[in-house]
Amino acid sequence: MLGASQRRRTVIVMKPDLTQLYPPSRLARVREATAEAGLDALLLTPGPDLRYATGYDAIQLERLTCLVVPAHGEPFLVVPRLELAAAQASPAGALDVEMVPWEETDDPYALVARRLPAARAVGVADRMWAVMALRFQEAMPQARQVPAGRVMGRLRARKSPAEIAALREAGAAIDRVHRQVPALLKAGRTEREVGRDIAEAIVAEGHAKVDFVIVASGPNAASPHHELSDRVIGPGEPVVIDIGGTMPSGYCSDETRNYCIGEPPAAYTAYYQVLRRAQQAACRAVRPGVTPEQVDAAAREVIAEAGYGEFFIHRTGHGIGLETHEEPYIVAGNTRPLEPGMAFSVEPGIYPGEHGARIEDIVVCTEDGFESVNHVERDLIVVD
Amino acid sequence: MLGASQRRRTVIVMKPDLTQLYPPSRLARVREATAEAGLDALLLTPGPDLRYATGYDAIQLERLTCLVVPAHGEPFLVVPRLELAAAQASPAGALDVEMVPWEETDDPYALVARRLPAARAVGVADRMWAVMALRFQEAMPQARQVPAGRVMGRLRARKSPAEIAALREAGAAIDRVHRQVPALLKAGRTEREVGRDIAEAIVAEGHAKVDFVIVASGPNAASPHHELSDRVIGPGEPVVIDIGGTMPSGYCSDETRNYCIGEPPAAYTAYYQVLRRAQQAACRAVRPGVTPEQVDAAAREVIAEAGYGEFFIHRTGHGIGLETHEEPYIVAGNTRPLEPGMAFSVEPGIYPGEHGARIEDIVVCTEDGFESVNHVERDLIVVD
Repeated sequence: MLGASQRRRTVIVMKPDLTQLYPPSRLARVREATAEAGLDALLLTPGPDLRYATGYDAIQLERLTCLVVPAHGEPFLVVPRLELAAAQASPAGALDVEMVPWEETDDPYALVARRLPAARAVGVADRMWAVMALRFQEAMPQARQVPAGRVMGRLRARKSPAEIAALREAGAAIDRVHRQVPALLKAGRTEREVGRDIAEAIVAEGHAKVDFVIVASGPNAASPHHELSDRVIGPGEPVVIDIGGTMPSGYCSDETRNYCIGEPPAAYTAYYQVLRRAQQAACRAVRPGVTPEQVDAAAREVIAEAGYGEFFIHRTGHGIGLETHEEPYIVAGNTRPLEPGMAFSVEPGIYPGEHGARIEDIVVCTEDGFESVNHVERDLIVVD
Repeated sequence: MLGASQRRRTVIVMKPDLTQLYPPSRLARVREATAEAGLDALLLTPGPDLRYATGYDAIQLERLTCLVVPAHGEPFLVVPRLELAAAQASPAGALDVEMVPWEETDDPYALVARRLPAARAVGVADRMWAVMALRFQEAMPQARQVPAGRVMGRLRARKSPAEIAALREAGAAIDRVHRQVPALLKAGRTEREVGRDIAEAIVAEGHAKVDFVIVASGPNAASPHHELSDRVIGPGEPVVIDIGGTMPSGYCSDETRNYCIGEPPAAYTAYYQVLRRAQQAACRAVRPGVTPEQVDAAAREVIAEAGYGEFFIHRTGHGIGLETHEEPYIVAGNTRPLEPGMAFSVEPGIYPGEHGARIEDIVVCTEDGFESVNHVERDLIVVD
């Protein structure tokens, strides 16, 4: 466990400017995109779409909070009376958005329906609870629902300079956590013990929230989404450490590195070199106009040619921003070309069974290539 | 901040027996209830419904994990290949449930649709992401969707003895946190500083996760969902502290107490006594056959008679279990009678503006009254 003095040390971070990160002009852009998509309105409940549109980090509760963005007309925020003060104090309070409070015994769905009498097609936030989408369907039976992601996914995928700065800040924070791992990883400790220390370090290094901590040793590394267990880590065992959190800005970190206490098995070293080249090849494939499936293929080809194809059992990556997983997904079948500002993970893995490995960086597509926001050594990190 | 020795001390808890908490027989009960509700199947994605039905605490991700419970036929779990090992290792692995893995480029919605060709009405988990419900609608256009809560809400609302034991365990844990508050609350500290210490204590006292920490001092107490600010707490200021977390069992805690550094204003003391009686009156109204709106009215009448009616601006309570807010809601209009085993908060509040107060206990409806799972002193707690 980290000592109290370590946990308390002050972290100096460049605090992102929220006005640049969530510019007031964004709401107009969302409205334009809604009209372009042929939708009459977007209905955005608490979650990443609402935060992207307004900066309001609202809590998802059973009481309806919903930003309504009509394609033609003024946006308004339907909000429980109880949450009105919080909404007004949030960045949404500084926008030109009418706040429409509702009382405990009102029907907020009917309230929205009355204000959108002519709506024939509405986009509902991808992460809206189904029970709310169904209530909207009942209240507005004439309005066909489509996922708001069709509009918001495209906007959110291409990051602004301020968003890229926020991802760099998140990348630097999780880099600092990985740099502490060699001091935490000792033979005889359990995955859970190491994981608890890492979770503390994620917060101590400036994240607002721990999103996930994967410490996968020995055969557990062969299950890519294994989290933590009471398995005791032994000498000579490769360990996959895949960790991430959300920064106060709202933007997420996600980075995987590979460690071994002492020397790893020879079979592991052989495929680790292949994986290292595959991850590099995929990063180098990134540039505007290239498709996500081409990036995926760049990693897959290196691994397949070396004879490990059957052990690379997942896509190469996922977009990242206000969510850990968002568009663009780096997977076969995704043929929408990359654009400058798109940010995503490049994380091929090889999982033969006795052990496994995965190398992951968050990269941003630049005008002519890529920038990684993570900078920790990508070779196997051997600890005492 | 709590010292390291305090944070590290071992907490002795009665660990709930997961087999009793999530009995294998429950899935059959869910299936029966699905048939009784006239639905052909339930579609349960990661969240409280899935956990209740199987014990599987799956992570909600963009890749579909879905327990399909046909009204007539065998349940099966559609799971991404990547999550198969985790699903098998979960309590769901011990149930008689077929696991149907899908690969990165498969369409899992089509897979479910092919196995439910005759479905005309399906219940989708209330917390399912709308984007998933819409994908199911596309894949199964003949199947009308209704909220699965119509089936699951009723089952979940009436707690088993093991669930009540888990709520007692959660209640005892949050009681221990409230008992530490007098040592943390000092004039000159900010709400955020006190809140951070409380968050640490919530985990140290046995919760797996902090759900919320409200430290609302002075006028902030007048916004019932205020969380934390950098406001410095002064002497003579009432402070509302409303905190909760999720235990490793999956069950939640939620308890509000009121503190003051030194003597509170006389006006506050006057309405606090009214609030104390109102909260007691509502608790004493709880018994089988009474409706939630009668419990709400019992608190509201005391407050209104004393002339503070306009300052009690929210419902009296909410059910609690695997979610902090679930059925039954203790609100005007809810006329479904209480039954033994129902668990919910009783938390009237008075918020005149300069300050405010709320007293909250989690209570369980017993055969002939109520049991509170919280036991910390309900009078105003005056600290030095």
